[in-house]
Amino acid sequence: MAISLTQSIWNELLLKRDALAGKPLAALFAQDPQRFAGLSRSADDLLLDLSKQRLTREIVIGLCAFAEASGFGPARERLFGAKVVNASEDRPALHWALRLQHDRPVLVGGVDVVPAIRAVQARMRGIADAIGAGDWPGARGTPIDTVVHLGIGGSDLGPRMAVHALAEDRVAGIAVHFVSNVDPAQLGRVLPGLDPARTLLIVCSKSFRTPETLANAQAARDWLRERLGADADLSRHIVAVTANVPAARAFGIAEDNILPMWDWVGGRFSLWSAVGLPVAIAAGWERFAELLAGAARMDAHFATAPATGNLPLLLALIDFWNVNALKVTQRVTAPYSSALDLFALYVQQVEMESNGKSVAADGGATPWITTPGVWGAAGTDSQHSFFQWLHQGNIAANVELIVPVASRHGDRARQDILLANALAQAQALLAGRTREDVEAEMLAQGADPAIVERVAPHRVFGGDRTSTMLLLPGVNAFRLGQLCALYEHKAFCFGVLAGINSFDQWGVELGKTLAVGVEAALAGGALPPDADGSTVGLIEAIRAMRAV
Amino acid sequence: MAISLTQSIWNELLLKRDALAGKPLAALFAQDPQRFAGLSRSADDLLLDLSKQRLTREIVIGLCAFAEASGFGPARERLFGAKVVNASEDRPALHWALRLQHDRPVLVGGVDVVPAIRAVQARMRGIADAIGAGDWPGARGTPIDTVVHLGIGGSDLGPRMAVHALAEDRVAGIAVHFVSNVDPAQLGRVLPGLDPARTLLIVCSKSFRTPETLANAQAARDWLRERLGADADLSRHIVAVTANVPAARAFGIAEDNILPMWDWVGGRFSLWSAVGLPVAIAAGWERFAELLAGAARMDAHFATAPATGNLPLLLALIDFWNVNALKVTQRVTAPYSSALDLFALYVQQVEMESNGKSVAADGGATPWITTPGVWGAAGTDSQHSFFQWLHQGNIAANVELIVPVASRHGDRARQDILLANALAQAQALLAGRTREDVEAEMLAQGADPAIVERVAPHRVFGGDRTSTMLLLPGVNAFRLGQLCALYEHKAFCFGVLAGINSFDQWGVELGKTLAVGVEAALAGGALPPDADGSTVGLIEAIRAMRAV
Repeated sequence: MAISLTQSIWNELLLKRDALAGKPLAALFAQDPQRFAGLSRSADDLLLDLSKQRLTREIVIGLCAFAEASGFGPARERLFGAKVVNASEDRPALHWALRLQHDRPVLVGGVDVVPAIRAVQARMRGIADAIGAGDWPGARGTPIDTVVHLGIGGSDLGPRMAVHALAEDRVAGIAVHFVSNVDPAQLGRVLPGLDPARTLLIVCSKSFRTPETLANAQAARDWLRERLGADADLSRHIVAVTANVPAARAFGIAEDNILPMWDWVGGRFSLWSAVGLPVAIAAGWERFAELLAGAARMDAHFATAPATGNLPLLLALIDFWNVNALKVTQRVTAPYSSALDLFALYVQQVEMESNGKSVAADGGATPWITTPGVWGAAGTDSQHSFFQWLHQGNIAANVELIVPVASRHGDRARQDILLANALAQAQALLAGRTREDVEAEMLAQGADPAIVERVAPHRVFGGDRTSTMLLLPGVNAFRLGQLCALYEHKAFCFGVLAGINSFDQWGVELGKTLAVGVEAALAGGALPPDADGSTVGLIEAIRAMRAV
Repeated sequence: MAISLTQSIWNELLLKRDALAGKPLAALFAQDPQRFAGLSRSADDLLLDLSKQRLTREIVIGLCAFAEASGFGPARERLFGAKVVNASEDRPALHWALRLQHDRPVLVGGVDVVPAIRAVQARMRGIADAIGAGDWPGARGTPIDTVVHLGIGGSDLGPRMAVHALAEDRVAGIAVHFVSNVDPAQLGRVLPGLDPARTLLIVCSKSFRTPETLANAQAARDWLRERLGADADLSRHIVAVTANVPAARAFGIAEDNILPMWDWVGGRFSLWSAVGLPVAIAAGWERFAELLAGAARMDAHFATAPATGNLPLLLALIDFWNVNALKVTQRVTAPYSSALDLFALYVQQVEMESNGKSVAADGGATPWITTPGVWGAAGTDSQHSFFQWLHQGNIAANVELIVPVASRHGDRARQDILLANALAQAQALLAGRTREDVEAEMLAQGADPAIVERVAPHRVFGGDRTSTMLLLPGVNAFRLGQLCALYEHKAFCFGVLAGINSFDQWGVELGKTLAVGVEAALAGGALPPDADGSTVGLIEAIRAMRAV
């Protein structure tokens, strides 16, 4: 049987992998003095260093050939050509159109979507400017200065992450809160501290059917009504962001305050749409425009750079290589930046919801292992947590360090400690430390030989652990836009490599459906039909706990 | 060659595992109608359901025998007998002594540590009560009402998590902030909003040498001095928590404001010591005492319950089984509680820093795979993020759901949605959904057969994915104490099973050491000797970025 081109390239890559077996990364550096230069890439002031990955320049070239054989070029053209790339939902994916820096038409079904995008942007800007200027009065005439954004998943994580990242750009006097969880504790903790007369709710749900968001929106509206009076005019207190305008209207939201989104933008790619309204309010429209411009800069890079210098593709290839060739199924992302505290959660969502799949776009099983477990937290904090496991555990993980060079807070000494730690962790993961070194050092420090014998084995580091580093000049709205778009396109590329559709998310459906039956049972109804013995037992246990 | 008892029990367990091969979890429920009853455990109002794990009652009995053969009983006695359980550092681990509900002596080197614990508790209470009563005046005579806690890792995550969890218990008028990262952005975002005359710094570092904490403490003290005047009396503005009292004194902290901790409590187990001071200030001493009492309740359970009903041990065995028998190397923890938003990060630290090791306590390589990657985030949020991957990805992960039944916010409808989602996710992971079911449903809904053909494969769920569920009555200080102690003891048990020392953390050392050389190079010094080509290249790239 003839094998495909991708399979034959892959087989050659596996031979190259096998040729590296038993060769530590340190030896690869020793044998190629130009390894760093040959395995790092610059674009738009970003530097991506792949030289601490378990591969060679030849393998990267092979991986790029694999990407081309997998249809990288045409797929990218389909994406930017507004063709259907989300086959199971029969849609294009146009998040990039939301950040276009020009007005050339983007046609969907023969209709140019750009005017609609511009119209919504103008309305977003109007709201953000008015609130920022103290010119958006609530029911009692006092200006709105507090926003409670109600959304979950793709309608929450992106703007939440960005508002945190851009705290230095905060418009004076404006507070923005995020409530996502249906747990009444989350909304219940936020509302009591707020003045309803000054509070705007943003109800953000693409379908306007998300149970969590709708339940919270009802509770928050009840709170407004109770506090402001049943006949208060709430029209200036609630904004909706949704692709289901009729449902928002039926909820009672004023037509002027319904900002549309479209079925061609997925939740986890929607930061650039009206879902980003809390960012525009918190940081001001100019910053939001810079966020869009930064993303557009990455779009231009992604759309035009050849495979071997294409940052999103290279990031995707690194994951693909680690997962499929090296069987490393976890990737740990640590941004060395407190501003990027939530960035690991953001990329976790973008990557795992996009590519946590097993079925190829054509309906068959994909022959590839798909996205690794993606998790992480900011450094240096995480050095005092799970880095112990990265250095001395016995389960392999690939590490990704995101390192903004300049601080917006001007303290060079602490910024140097921060940067030094990022580089030193990657160095330590690679270099390790032998027992001989440990013993020599301990003895030189005058340690008792019996103690050296007992302690030294615990101070050994195997080393030879892989990492990627991304340097960027700093964190601001533009850089954040670049960074987010980098991971969006990276997720798309990974989908192309694995032959899967990165734009649907059917995996969220089943639990939602089953929850309906469990909820009815908890409220006193019949046990859900076909529930397993554990689910039934747990429902009964909850009922019993409540009866106490 | 004779094999050990543990190895022989393990070999039998592997045979039992093999006997389950190809048998879906659903079939195990079908063949044992009492499976839930037989594989769930109750203790102190907690319910632990193991029935959705890939095992049988017989296997649990075998795992408990394995634990006994691994020395579970004697290890537990050594722990509570204040014997050395941290061999590489030649120390006992006495975090449990910090929450004793009686004053019977605990001897370390012949000295009873309880009086010292009580003395520190009295001082903590004095500080917390005084601040809560507005009776702790700063340099200008105005009462302190704002705390900035400076610590990282074990000196940060525990109290940060607990203060968030117990927000409902917040003492009116008191604000507590946490700053951990050396990134100047973190401190730089907190201080400008504060009134220095009302601000207390807690400098929390066991060694009083943690670079991040000391750098932040210096910057924060400079801020106080600049704002309050060089000759202001800062003695009431800075408290230290440390085992290195002389260093705190040398930093200039008043003797009365130095709260000691001891070498027998590890950072990640130190919430119960003076490290918990921000919890006592934020929630009041009574709540902190309840936290201790809850932990003591778990200590009593752990110390006395037989293996087969011992919750910490069972949790450890589930991880051990998944990692070593089933080769599932990731565990995902999702608390269905917004109050427990930070709990997954907390257990990540407790487990991964304790057991992310490869060397057995005797200095040889452990034959076991040690702790899995532990990560997660609160549900229902995470259902809209990585749950897609859990349901439809092709990398195995074991899921752990922590579900508090009652809400402190009284909204039964939303609480029911929350609980129903937790149960339904576990049900969905187990049950899956066949293509036949999907097609039948779509056709019944009137879908076009061509669309059914195209879409159905993407809506299939393989199911047969494992999960553990822990039900607890709700979240309050006592329950939180129980929960934290549960995971502390679980980590200890896992260490016993794998034959490793859970109480040291040598893996954090090497990066720290190497950072010194990198920092010097970034500040303009020589390149670090022996640095790999990537580290050198990155240092040069950072220098170049800064020169622009």
